Amino acid sequence: MITLTTDFGLKGPYVGEMKVAMLRINPNAKIVDVTHSVTRHSILEGSFVMEQVVKYSPKGTVHVGVIDPGVGTERRAIVIEGDQYLVVPDNGLATLPLKHIKVKSVYEIIPDKIRKFTGWEISSTFHGRDIFGPAGALIEKGIHPEEFGREIPVDSIVKLNVEPRKEGDVWILKVIYIDDFGNVILNLENYEKPRTVELLDFNLRLPYLETYGLVEKGEMLALPGSHDYLEIAVNMGSAAERLNVKVGDELRVRLL
Amino acid sequence: MITLTTDFGLKGPYVGEMKVAMLRINPNAKIVDVTHSVTRHSILEGSFVMEQVVKYSPKGTVHVGVIDPGVGTERRAIVIEGDQYLVVPDNGLATLPLKHIKVKSVYEIIPDKIRKFTGWEISSTFHGRDIFGPAGALIEKGIHPEEFGREIPVDSIVKLNVEPRKEGDVWILKVIYIDDFGNVILNLENYEKPRTVELLDFNLRLPYLETYGLVEKGEMLALPGSHDYLEIAVNMGSAAERLNVKVGDELRVRLL
Amino acid sequence: MITLTTDFGLKGPYVGEMKVAMLRINPNAKIVDVTHSVTRHSILEGSFVMEQVVKYSPKGTVHVGVIDPGVGTERRAIVIEGDQYLVVPDNGLATLPLKHIKVKSVYEIIPDKIRKFTGWEISSTFHGRDIFGPAGALIEKGIHPEEFGREIPVDSIVKLNVEPRKEGDVWILKVIYIDDFGNVILNLENYEKPRTVELLDFNLRLPYLETYGLVEKGEMLALPGSHDYLEIAVNMGSAAERLNVKVGDELRVRLL
Repeated sequence: MITLTTDFGLKGPYVGEMKVAMLRINPNAKIVDVTHSVTRHSILEGSFVMEQVVKYSPKGTVHVGVIDPGVGTERRAIVIEGDQYLVVPDNGLATLPLKHIKVKSVYEIIPDKIRKFTGWEISSTFHGRDIFGPAGALIEKGIHPEEFGREIPVDSIVKLNVEPRKEGDVWILKVIYIDDFGNVILNLENYEKPRTVELLDFNLRLPYLETYGLVEKGEMLALPGSHDYLEIAVNMGSAAERLNVKVGDELRVRLL
Repeated sequence: MITLTTDFGLKGPYVGEMKVAMLRINPNAKIVDVTHSVTRHSILEGSFVMEQVVKYSPKGTVHVGVIDPGVGTERRAIVIEGDQYLVVPDNGLATLPLKHIKVKSVYEIIPDKIRKFTGWEISSTFHGRDIFGPAGALIEKGIHPEEFGREIPVDSIVKLNVEPRKEGDVWILKVIYIDDFGNVILNLENYEKPRTVELLDFNLRLPYLETYGLVEKGEMLALPGSHDYLEIAVNMGSAAERLNVKVGDELRVRLL
Repeated sequence: MITLTTDFGLKGPYVGEMKVAMLRINPNAKIVDVTHSVTRHSILEGSFVMEQVVKYSPKGTVHVGVIDPGVGTERRAIVIEGDQYLVVPDNGLATLPLKHIKVKSVYEIIPDKIRKFTGWEISSTFHGRDIFGPAGALIEKGIHPEEFGREIPVDSIVKLNVEPRKEGDVWILKVIYIDDFGNVILNLENYEKPRTVELLDFNLRLPYLETYGLVEKGEMLALPGSHDYLEIAVNMGSAAERLNVKVGDELRVRLL
């Protein structure tokens, strides 16, 4: 199975081009669209989305992610091999999904080598169709990355800075994702379940509950989202709008 | 074949998470995305959408629908077994598709039992990934709902009130759906074809014709939509905008 | 493999209805969604999108395209048979993809004949579900178009006027597509690579480079897009907004 996560949008030919190019190389590939609507060029958001899918995918799944503002410049195209695979630009996109993969080795894709498998020119603007998609299709077909890449040190790949920080009893947390419902997801996991969550920048104390429906419509709460990160939500409303925050913003938070 | 109808939106990981979770349980499942863009929490709209797909699906199709504002609270998760299957929250979502299914029996899904098949914790906010998707995958794989649910009376399930009412020669109809083109679909079927349709609240008399292209651009008409319900449309325009109506609104209509 | 390109939008049941109807006729069909978000009724945009997908598809692929403002009126429904297939309304949609197909013959689909395969009524508003989808599913299953259509002259099909014109050393070009990123694609291919591209209507001289990342953020450039047409872009910005142009607009351009 190959999953696809991109910021191509759903309007044009790009997603379709990538898929037919992959199926041309591997006609039996099972391709699962995760999303093609990651906020444009948002590598952190793409990394969060890929992490959630890796957590629930079976062993051997190949995850292709293309959020690639640096396409055509120096950035490397890489394959991370482990109990699951990541095929991504080396720009930090792998950071969060990597936490859930037993990494064996990493390969830099060599454009000239992959062209031998695809048979068409590599454009300077659409590596999803010309490099990443085909690499995913080849791996899922059983062709080892060595045949179109060279091994590179695992610790040489680019990582985003998404670790939570603590100053005294106050967490400095980052908004790593805002979903379609306006729920705000912060980069804190494996925390001891609090009764109350204090948002110091907003002078707000929120009840920490199990699900949205346990507060009145329009009320704000904190909860353990389905992704195991700390989530701020408004029942049948948008916490992101209420707090006026976006991906990458920092919040001072105290768990009580 | 398993169809998916949700209000998850296309931006985040949710649709992808649900699909990889289903394919992990049933790698050969053929999953068809109907839509993930039902208006958020609109159970009536979701029910209309699922009805149209059930009408054209082959026997044995499993339809998973997740429009679930009450996730994590008391509402039941149910499987409706018949010549086709519905796997939905028991909140009225089944109302319209049920009209086209020869129901054999209904089961309430028991979370602890389905966990034995999935192998992961059930979150309190994402039952699409943890309960509904897996249940659909198990049924399509040939596992009977009895193995993860208990039978409940067919007439105990929640139904929406979508029957058209008549006062004298005036129909009191409800807007049950507005499509991407702004066409307004009303809850009247199997009616005798009129020459004219009168919208009393708007003092409008519309020609009843077979298709959009038979009136000038920008003109309003009534027609037998492709879904067999009475439809109000504007040729290459939006009737919903022109009439300023939304799903759930009531209209007084006379067929002449 | 069957690709789908439509302007149905992703909100309603229409895409799902078309797919389950196709899978009912051909349960093993591999259906690839190219896009369902072509700008409503934009035949030129749909033609551009289908062209890009045809260029990268394997032989034998069946491309179903439904951008169909004239549904239910006189316009023909056609199948173009060649090393790949097009199943489209005869309204010009085939113009650009046709450039990449070795055409053998063209058939007009006969509604009554296709009904024998589908088994349901043909609506006057939804030929995607009732004619085009089923025709694609039948062809991919190996059923020849002769069994549900009659042959018509290849040169009788409708063509859009998308040839670039030249007046002296000035090209009169047409905007044939604007992607989700706001990149503006013009109808000029196979041109000699210039150093500079002059947009006479905007008194602008743009560098002609290989990729977006080679100019500063917010700067405009010209480049050979991944589709081989001349493209005008703004690095991490929208050229369409900057130039305030839309599909179909004409621009005077000089290559220097």
